[in-house]
Amino acid sequence: MASEIKALVAEKAGTTLSPLTISRRELMPDDVQFDVLYCGICHSDLHQMQNDFGMSQYPMVPGHEIVGKVTAIGSDVTKFKVGDLAAVGCIVDSCGSCASCDGKLEQFCEQGVTFSFNSADKYSGGQTLGGFSKSYVCKEAYTLKMPESLDLAAAAPLLCAGITVYSPLRHWNAGKGKKVGVVGLGGLGHMAIKMAKAMGAEVIVFTTSQNKAADAKRLGAHDAVVSTDKVKMAEYASKVDLIIDTVSAKHDVNEYLNLLAIDGSVVLVGLPPEPLEIGAFNIVMGRRSFSGSNIGGIAETQEMLGFCDKHNITADIELIKASEVNQAFERLAKGDVKYRFVIDMSTLS
Amino acid sequence: MASEIKALVAEKAGTTLSPLTISRRELMPDDVQFDVLYCGICHSDLHQMQNDFGMSQYPMVPGHEIVGKVTAIGSDVTKFKVGDLAAVGCIVDSCGSCASCDGKLEQFCEQGVTFSFNSADKYSGGQTLGGFSKSYVCKEAYTLKMPESLDLAAAAPLLCAGITVYSPLRHWNAGKGKKVGVVGLGGLGHMAIKMAKAMGAEVIVFTTSQNKAADAKRLGAHDAVVSTDKVKMAEYASKVDLIIDTVSAKHDVNEYLNLLAIDGSVVLVGLPPEPLEIGAFNIVMGRRSFSGSNIGGIAETQEMLGFCDKHNITADIELIKASEVNQAFERLAKGDVKYRFVIDMSTLS
Repeated sequence: MASEIKALVAEKAGTTLSPLTISRRELMPDDVQFDVLYCGICHSDLHQMQNDFGMSQYPMVPGHEIVGKVTAIGSDVTKFKVGDLAAVGCIVDSCGSCASCDGKLEQFCEQGVTFSFNSADKYSGGQTLGGFSKSYVCKEAYTLKMPESLDLAAAAPLLCAGITVYSPLRHWNAGKGKKVGVVGLGGLGHMAIKMAKAMGAEVIVFTTSQNKAADAKRLGAHDAVVSTDKVKMAEYASKVDLIIDTVSAKHDVNEYLNLLAIDGSVVLVGLPPEPLEIGAFNIVMGRRSFSGSNIGGIAETQEMLGFCDKHNITADIELIKASEVNQAFERLAKGDVKYRFVIDMSTLS
Repeated sequence: MASEIKALVAEKAGTTLSPLTISRRELMPDDVQFDVLYCGICHSDLHQMQNDFGMSQYPMVPGHEIVGKVTAIGSDVTKFKVGDLAAVGCIVDSCGSCASCDGKLEQFCEQGVTFSFNSADKYSGGQTLGGFSKSYVCKEAYTLKMPESLDLAAAAPLLCAGITVYSPLRHWNAGKGKKVGVVGLGGLGHMAIKMAKAMGAEVIVFTTSQNKAADAKRLGAHDAVVSTDKVKMAEYASKVDLIIDTVSAKHDVNEYLNLLAIDGSVVLVGLPPEPLEIGAFNIVMGRRSFSGSNIGGIAETQEMLGFCDKHNITADIELIKASEVNQAFERLAKGDVKYRFVIDMSTLS
């Protein structure tokens, strides 16, 4: 039987979120249902609420960094039992049979993935409704096991911010003996510092602000460079193996390409709306690359949770009540958060 | 004793080439001296003659696709004897001790390479003088063994055009089961077709011209797409593993990024003077890369000559007399060459 639950709903583009009632589907045999304990707030929730990508459908329930406790399972479910911790990130379904899905890269499913909110819902019709809600229903294969020992509120952002930087760090072989740069210190950047450091890399943060540079060191960066400091920037010229670029606004990538060692890559994980300009010399000299990466597959997300459990990595968060969500989005829009808001969903009623 | 020889000399920026006398250094113990038989004409000769990069010194002798026959050797030379074939490409010296040189990537020498022309000459002072000349002197370690069985005139362009595309094809693993795209059909592009095909890849050429598309197939391409044909372009969306982009003018790279399969790369080997614009979605989706590559190291150039010998690969050339060189440059500036001019240096007197 479908269940009626409370959620934080945007009724149309530009409106704030209001607590309203939504419906979750009756469990299919391979479904897991869980009470949402915590849900992180990501900048892409804001983009979707504001219809910045032109693909938003309303009413919308945002939220895709979802941690909870299992309350019911379908008849075929074997990995979860009632009472287990569970988590859902960006992806709740994919075709399961294309080359990308076969290769555990569901994020690049050739049929297109179903996202945890604002995607066409194959089973219930309408749109998927996200984790800013009292409960969630997800197919077992796309539901993640959540380690028991992590601070669950602070772990919620691992499901999007975490995997978004973990995946390129792994793919481009961050580790011992490597210099890893992080451009931008926000939700993604601060996770990248912690993860790259735990992988054994030397971490250098590049930021526009002196205050953030200081905070980068507190977070574990070996060095932090204010990008307007041309002398300090020049010290890293041709020395950095991998740079994770988390900036979502137009910016000059060339100054970071020039910091790369031979065969190095700047990997963009943000989505600046305007094109970025690349000077030919900056990639031709040193066989450098400007690359992109998008979240990660389900198996890799599970691997990342294990890695964070082992190294006790979580996000630096501000835990808020459901009633504070609109104020949190206002602050997020101004970049005023260190470094992720997480909603305590027990406060939603 | 230094030797006085004839060469084709540009006396200042913008002038045509004239046959004048230049001097070659007395042989050092590790030097090889050879009579130049053939020298290819590359677009970068034109750029340097016109001072397009602002680094030109005059009088200048262009030419860096140089094939010849050894006439004298220094006392320490062991790889060459008088009468052997020899060749010199872009690089005639490097520091020999940095990480790049140690890694056989002399093209990225941390001290900067000495190019075969228009580089500061460490030994004779002034500038290095290129292969548009009756003879050349080069250190043994930077002189290449030239296979006996290739058509030597048609093989000259291998020394720059050839290695420039061979190196990225090898580095990005072109071969059986891979789809390799080639953007632009000129000196570099036509070599890329032949080499990628010999490596076992399926080769697709993208060009703006219907005539060039037809010629691409004659040269061995499995398919040729006129890039304005949106239907045909769409057929290759997300299907191409590696694209060698030989275009040296401003162009839209995004339409080629969108042809890449997951983890694919567009590799730029041209040097467009203006920055190229990259849309974030086009690299973030599919974990794609926009990369660059610059000629190749000495060992790899020697390997390439062996590969071309084995597969009987040379350039399609127009062999000209020394007296036709200025006319050839006029035609080159208009893109009117299929696909490389080579000077028969026996005609210079």
